Amino acid sequence: MERVLSNELSSHAGERVRMAGWMHRIRRLGSGIVFVHLRDRSGICQIVVEAPGVIASLDGLLAESVVEVEGTVVAEAQATGGYEIHEPSFTVLSAVTDALPFPINKPVINAHLDTFLDHAMIGLRAPVKQAVFKLSAAVAHAFRDVLDGKGFTEIATPKIIGSASESGANVFALDYFGKQAYLAQSPQFYKQIMVGVFERVYEVAPVFRAEPHQTVRHLNEYVSMDAEMGFIQDHTTVMTLLTEVIRGILDYIGSHCAQELVLLNVQMPLAPQEFPRIYFPEAQQWIFEHHGEDCRGEPDLAPQHEKWLGEWAKETFQSDFLFVTGYPMVKRPFYTAPNPDDTRYSNSFDLLFRGTELVTGGQRLNRFEDYARALEARGMTQEAVASYLETFRFGMPPHGGFAIGLERFIMQLVNLSNLRDAALFPRDMERIQP
Amino acid sequence: MERVLSNELSSHAGERVRMAGWMHRIRRLGSGIVFVHLRDRSGICQIVVEAPGVIASLDGLLAESVVEVEGTVVAEAQATGGYEIHEPSFTVLSAVTDALPFPINKPVINAHLDTFLDHAMIGLRAPVKQAVFKLSAAVAHAFRDVLDGKGFTEIATPKIIGSASESGANVFALDYFGKQAYLAQSPQFYKQIMVGVFERVYEVAPVFRAEPHQTVRHLNEYVSMDAEMGFIQDHTTVMTLLTEVIRGILDYIGSHCAQELVLLNVQMPLAPQEFPRIYFPEAQQWIFEHHGEDCRGEPDLAPQHEKWLGEWAKETFQSDFLFVTGYPMVKRPFYTAPNPDDTRYSNSFDLLFRGTELVTGGQRLNRFEDYARALEARGMTQEAVASYLETFRFGMPPHGGFAIGLERFIMQLVNLSNLRDAALFPRDMERIQP
Repeated sequence: MERVLSNELSSHAGERVRMAGWMHRIRRLGSGIVFVHLRDRSGICQIVVEAPGVIASLDGLLAESVVEVEGTVVAEAQATGGYEIHEPSFTVLSAVTDALPFPINKPVINAHLDTFLDHAMIGLRAPVKQAVFKLSAAVAHAFRDVLDGKGFTEIATPKIIGSASESGANVFALDYFGKQAYLAQSPQFYKQIMVGVFERVYEVAPVFRAEPHQTVRHLNEYVSMDAEMGFIQDHTTVMTLLTEVIRGILDYIGSHCAQELVLLNVQMPLAPQEFPRIYFPEAQQWIFEHHGEDCRGEPDLAPQHEKWLGEWAKETFQSDFLFVTGYPMVKRPFYTAPNPDDTRYSNSFDLLFRGTELVTGGQRLNRFEDYARALEARGMTQEAVASYLETFRFGMPPHGGFAIGLERFIMQLVNLSNLRDAALFPRDMERIQP
Repeated sequence: MERVLSNELSSHAGERVRMAGWMHRIRRLGSGIVFVHLRDRSGICQIVVEAPGVIASLDGLLAESVVEVEGTVVAEAQATGGYEIHEPSFTVLSAVTDALPFPINKPVINAHLDTFLDHAMIGLRAPVKQAVFKLSAAVAHAFRDVLDGKGFTEIATPKIIGSASESGANVFALDYFGKQAYLAQSPQFYKQIMVGVFERVYEVAPVFRAEPHQTVRHLNEYVSMDAEMGFIQDHTTVMTLLTEVIRGILDYIGSHCAQELVLLNVQMPLAPQEFPRIYFPEAQQWIFEHHGEDCRGEPDLAPQHEKWLGEWAKETFQSDFLFVTGYPMVKRPFYTAPNPDDTRYSNSFDLLFRGTELVTGGQRLNRFEDYARALEARGMTQEAVASYLETFRFGMPPHGGFAIGLERFIMQLVNLSNLRDAALFPRDMERIQP
């Protein structure tokens, strides 16, 4: 007999079916009736057990035992999905006799974060946790879909790299057959190089940051969704692309993840066709005028500044997204293209999502001479980035791109309080298990 | 004026268009005419330059210079695609004045492998190289498509891990905030754990192997396409899935990569609806009977054995793919499920593609007691794999899966002589640059 899933019962009313899954909840009533909630990859359905012999066959089984069930599909208005299983018989595939580290069949997981993460192998089975990572998979899927539709090519760049030159600090070192190697902090150099090959490229892959910060917004390994494109006008071409990517992702999850969005109580973001934008020094002026805090001339925005700007964007433009453009060159990496009209500022941007930075991007330098000058101005040598530089000796178009942290996107979308809740098995300064 | 791509010229016959790309080839004829081959992400088109002033504007420009071109689209039967550009004017976006390390506009790249890899930033622009990585992106795309269609969920598992226990040897160690950590050799443990969450999962991500082998078939970092599914009958359920995945990939590239397959002269593999299969000891018996080599009782097949079996599968079953099932337990990892009818052999398989191993997979143990016994029999402690084992205390269905090395698939499909040609920036014992 072909296996039937929980969400397929309506097509089998009155039939005998075979199901399989985890015993999500077992309610043994005094009246000699047992309700089993069976969880499979499609959802949960209820099984009503009344025959004493069958009830006895479940003796000693605890939640999460894996069973096969044969039973009759019966319409029942009270049941989730409108159907339940009667007159079941069970085959135990894997009996659980230990109590779970914490219950996973409640709407909220009542476990300290560390306890949860120590037992994430089991805790992730909770529907409310499953939903977060279904959403995460859908976001990555939609990111690729949108870019595939625009002629982008997916690339796989190396994560073990020979020099730690992109930013210098905060890289993990490893022993590579007796030589020193490093873990890539980002595919930045490689994705630029690959613009020379395919014009438009993207990558969804892990990146590694040895940042010694133990906060709710840091992970030392995360998934970076990177895109880079050639033949742009300037950073605004990249902003248009990013807007389409964000809106494409939201459309996709809106139509493919209805169940998860409800379960997680997600309020879908306001994402107008054009996201509002504000130029960095004007943002500082606005903050001064409206909140009395004089940050004019400072090289970066503080979290509180971003929060105020986010509120302003929402009230004024009905947008949960806001581009801040033109960050000062001193705070941007050497490959950043300056604003040709005022070279103190850059052709770069951050995208704020609900008042917190979600994406960084911009136009890059594309001429060898500009790189040579930029490196010299920062006291960096050409030798350290020789391969990367060679790319620009041999013809590179104006180009730019951006990187979206997948876990941060999920954290802000779902309104999670800790970035660790957006990674299956998060890595922080203290945690590399499980 | 909206930019037009090389492969869009037929829709613009007679019009003035704007194009942009790399000067792939510049032929300066003595007769006062210059032919420029312009390469963009869609292909190559020819530009005919006759006006002396325009010819002068190209003086000194070498191949790979990046230009914008305005010109008139003219039908020309001789030209690739049937159209070329006349009466052009050029804007130089990035002038190349150095000679390339080696020409990239020939059908074959004439560079020693090491020279090529040192300059891969530029070498990958050659159409014949581009085609390999377009194919690679399409294979990954199709892998995900097929599995998405079967209710699989994409996962992102950590690449930095706390213990080197899966195989013990050949892992890269790194300094993780003063502690020892390791790079994941495979997502094996995590994908099994995630079967407990989603039943069916896959991941396309880098893996890291510190194998000290400098051969044409080894890389120390590669892309692994992993799948794992629950509620299987045994390893044959996994083989059926893998067959559908392989056939789905071949269908996809057949219909989406026609140009690349022609350029790379790829002979599409014979992939019947069911791949032939042979049981390990019977394969050894067949080798003894047909090739006179007595390998019966040996725990593994040698490359020559696989080659003979591949030839047999092709001749007898018109299949470039062959499953060898039941590899001896002694050669399989501790989590492998034994053949219940003969526990010397396993419920596992290799898939040979054109006589070389491409995929390894099988059924895993799913009961805690079986893991406890398997670890004890191999002299391994439970402590070293404690988190992984906890998964099996709390209900796991019969499950299994497989891993396909993306670069190996491409190598065998395209008939490349070196696995390094199937990675953008390959990592081997000697190479971590560029």
